[in-house]
Amino acid sequence: MSQAGAIGVFDSGVGGLTILREIVSLLPNENTIYLGDTARVPYGAKPKSTIIQYTLEDARFLWEQKIKALVVACNTICCLAMSELRQAFDLPIIGIIAPASRAAVELTRNKRIGVIGTEGTINSGVYYQLIKQLDNEIEIFPKACPLLESIVEENLLEGEVAQGIVDMYLSGLIKKQIDTLILGCTHYPLLRQLISECMGPEVTLLDPAAAVARELKQKLIENSLLNDKAEGYRKFFFTGQPQKAEKFIRYLNIKIDHIEQVDLVLPGA
Amino acid sequence: MSQAGAIGVFDSGVGGLTILREIVSLLPNENTIYLGDTARVPYGAKPKSTIIQYTLEDARFLWEQKIKALVVACNTICCLAMSELRQAFDLPIIGIIAPASRAAVELTRNKRIGVIGTEGTINSGVYYQLIKQLDNEIEIFPKACPLLESIVEENLLEGEVAQGIVDMYLSGLIKKQIDTLILGCTHYPLLRQLISECMGPEVTLLDPAAAVARELKQKLIENSLLNDKAEGYRKFFFTGQPQKAEKFIRYLNIKIDHIEQVDLVLPGA
Repeated sequence: MSQAGAIGVFDSGVGGLTILREIVSLLPNENTIYLGDTARVPYGAKPKSTIIQYTLEDARFLWEQKIKALVVACNTICCLAMSELRQAFDLPIIGIIAPASRAAVELTRNKRIGVIGTEGTINSGVYYQLIKQLDNEIEIFPKACPLLESIVEENLLEGEVAQGIVDMYLSGLIKKQIDTLILGCTHYPLLRQLISECMGPEVTLLDPAAAVARELKQKLIENSLLNDKAEGYRKFFFTGQPQKAEKFIRYLNIKIDHIEQVDLVLPGA
Repeated sequence: MSQAGAIGVFDSGVGGLTILREIVSLLPNENTIYLGDTARVPYGAKPKSTIIQYTLEDARFLWEQKIKALVVACNTICCLAMSELRQAFDLPIIGIIAPASRAAVELTRNKRIGVIGTEGTINSGVYYQLIKQLDNEIEIFPKACPLLESIVEENLLEGEVAQGIVDMYLSGLIKKQIDTLILGCTHYPLLRQLISECMGPEVTLLDPAAAVARELKQKLIENSLLNDKAEGYRKFFFTGQPQKAEKFIRYLNIKIDHIEQVDLVLPGA
């Protein structure tokens, strides 16, 4: 692994691009390769065995590109397949849950934290356990919001209909008097405005992306892998048609050096 | 193939159960085996190559149960993988598009037909081509409604939020003065009330299920495969957790003789 090797970043779809944006902003010199499994999105409600299989296929694709570190830009994968990933691939792997949990524990004043995510993320209980380990006095209010991942993938990011869906899921959380809400799915920062509209100004919305980027930087420094050469390249691969994804990348103001559709499933498999 | 063999019915998820309901109602003596690929739903926006692969895996599972006929209870599959299915499996295969198109052409008075479906179904143009072949004077107004499949899979079948999503997709169709609207996705009959509310009483909503069941009966008669013995069994297999699906089956008042989760993907594939 060399300093010039790229950072691999992957997600079930386009949500992980919100993590990539922070990485690019904090570490502009790093080369990045993003993989979005848009042909098989959403992962959120799939069985654990399916998610593990898809995750290993996703990671193998990036591994073959000789990446020097891997960022798992999907909460569902982090909750359900992280140990399998670490067993299969010998390189620095950065997840979301630990940096996000630490950031939330630092942020909360009243020790009441909400977490929203997919069914897979919420039902795994991983956020709950990690935050409790950090501070057992904190009360945690988890809420699965299955459709939010789909509406972001469909680019339905504003308007009455999207607000209605967001309100449907979050109205129950308002009564819990949380002061911090973890956006526990990388798709949700794209709905930040609608979520903020629903939760009100007293609740801090925590997008874990910045904390993940900081953790990545730390890991690169520890492993002497930081790239201090010129501006890095930005390559993108998607298993589905890349048109929709390209819109998101432009919406997030990330440059595109290369974008391509790829097939992860072996013929006949 | 014997008369006692079952009818295999499959779909990307639970939507095909609306077709099964009509089959069971028209042909109560037939044994049925339903497969819902709920671990990989939705198919609607996936690339064609992925849909073909999944379809062949789904059908192979039913083929191994020694079925005597196969009903493809998913418009997306019918539009994108029908010829591959017919090449791979030598048994009577019944799709949706042909019976639905014929029924719509018989129904319309003003020769203006709307079609709603997934992106895969609508972009394939198969409904358009078939209806034009049947009557070239008919004007067809297709509209892809990608989120409707997801909201049905999430059991969001009524209320303001669901109505808002339906209205968002259909409001443009109202101006087209259609008198017939093909529900070109087996999930949509579960949203019939909301769709009817939006389109108004002048528009006839065509659920293809009854026409598909009639076509199946015709094919069984032609092949001397009709089962005239006692009431048939109802077996169900789902690739995801079957709890949600079980709710739909009960909602549709279909008896359950057997229900089980299955894994279609070979280990290591």
